[in-house]
Amino acid sequence: MIIAFQGEHGAYSEAATVAHFGETVQPLPCQSFETVFGAVTDGTADRGLIPVENSLAGSIHRNYDLLLRYDLTIVGEVQIRIAHHLIALPGVKLTDVFHVYSHPQALAQCERSLDELLPQAERVPAYDTAGSVKMLREEGNRDGAAIASRRAADYYPMSVLCDDLEDDPENYTRFLILSQEPVVPEGAAKTSIVFSMDNVPGALFKSLAVFALRDIDLTKIESRPLRGTHSSPSGKPWQYFFYIDFAGSVRETACRNALNHLQEITSFFRVLGSYPRGV
Amino acid sequence: MIIAFQGEHGAYSEAATVAHFGETVQPLPCQSFETVFGAVTDGTADRGLIPVENSLAGSIHRNYDLLLRYDLTIVGEVQIRIAHHLIALPGVKLTDVFHVYSHPQALAQCERSLDELLPQAERVPAYDTAGSVKMLREEGNRDGAAIASRRAADYYPMSVLCDDLEDDPENYTRFLILSQEPVVPEGAAKTSIVFSMDNVPGALFKSLAVFALRDIDLTKIESRPLRGTHSSPSGKPWQYFFYIDFAGSVRETACRNALNHLQEITSFFRVLGSYPRGV
Repeated sequence: MIIAFQGEHGAYSEAATVAHFGETVQPLPCQSFETVFGAVTDGTADRGLIPVENSLAGSIHRNYDLLLRYDLTIVGEVQIRIAHHLIALPGVKLTDVFHVYSHPQALAQCERSLDELLPQAERVPAYDTAGSVKMLREEGNRDGAAIASRRAADYYPMSVLCDDLEDDPENYTRFLILSQEPVVPEGAAKTSIVFSMDNVPGALFKSLAVFALRDIDLTKIESRPLRGTHSSPSGKPWQYFFYIDFAGSVRETACRNALNHLQEITSFFRVLGSYPRGV
Repeated sequence: MIIAFQGEHGAYSEAATVAHFGETVQPLPCQSFETVFGAVTDGTADRGLIPVENSLAGSIHRNYDLLLRYDLTIVGEVQIRIAHHLIALPGVKLTDVFHVYSHPQALAQCERSLDELLPQAERVPAYDTAGSVKMLREEGNRDGAAIASRRAADYYPMSVLCDDLEDDPENYTRFLILSQEPVVPEGAAKTSIVFSMDNVPGALFKSLAVFALRDIDLTKIESRPLRGTHSSPSGKPWQYFFYIDFAGSVRETACRNALNHLQEITSFFRVLGSYPRGV
């Protein structure tokens, strides 16, 4: 089975792929999120894996946009803790390091640790975390280190100079698994939907009533204002998109009734998928 | 009046500062968001301006964390459209450009335009947009260009090779203005709050009822799961933070009643500020 993900080998997305599918699948590195959607759509990959929210950085709206643009369905979710490691060529010591390479977000998440550990080192922004490790290996760079996943250190292979560099350990990323065909989840399920309503007082309250009246538990809610008519499916200005995840599957009667009820009051509505609840 | 913002002169945050306060204030560049909060807290700056959500990239949870950690209050909001420009030293032509520098997010937001305009150019990630323009100026770099705001081109000063490079024009960032002391908004007001509740079915529905029952309009809602006990104010695992903005001020009786009602059912609650509604 081929699983498309965004990034280089050793990326956090690849770590999530392996956490979910095990080591026997074939991870397929893609340059952009759009390439991941394209690979699943044209059959190059069997599944795609995309990050949708990080506990520190927030939701990745770009991937919600792509979920609306492509005709794929969510078939699973996986959440991993983002543990940043300081990685260098074997034999390189902390005192050798005068440049630290990584994605700006990873550098920012390790700011305090870097100040303590490597006050002498310049921080150099890079496209991605695992890509920085690859670059050090290819260049034979011995005065630099990179911040990336343990998987990146193992892949290239490189040494870990320091574990768990992140200033805040509450750093989790949630990924969705995409497929051409829906699944029938067994056991505890979750459903992701997106809808929009006219911006009138109480509209959101009414939409949540369809779930509350049926004791259906929500696990995520997010509003997103849409300015102008450019991206709005119904073409009306100042509408909102709401992203909601709830416990249950579209196969369950209560959930199906709630969604039918919801469609009575929404101007745009789409089920993104029902899938087994991740851990 | 001194206004602290994150980034170099010419940053989009500085453009937002000037859009809100006019050209007479003194913008104070800060290295990090935390430095902005610190500058307002210790009185180095009169106000701080921080981005909290972008229409494409989503909410910036980091700044909501800092709002909880520091004892400042929101006194205003401003929203600007993010228009990316291709900027180079005067006299440099498109055909001279072999490197394009910017923040990875800005490079990603101009991906298609760059493919058409500069297929030959390598994209080089940098810490920030305006910082890339400053770097080109300081190095006298004539085979590079940067993606940044028009304000950055004017400040250093540099030439704009190409306007509105962004692939999606629906690119808006909302900023909050922070102060030590609250304001009494006149005219249309908005209030931002954060609260948490135990994760029981219908909890969010009940919390929204306090607004719906009083015909108070919500303008933003976002849930954020908190894993473990590390960041959770009440120490309980698997709680959620909810961020809500609503129309009205804490000075209005209906809003005050709604907030009193809300505190009956929340385990953590804080008003982040009431402020005049931005345009």
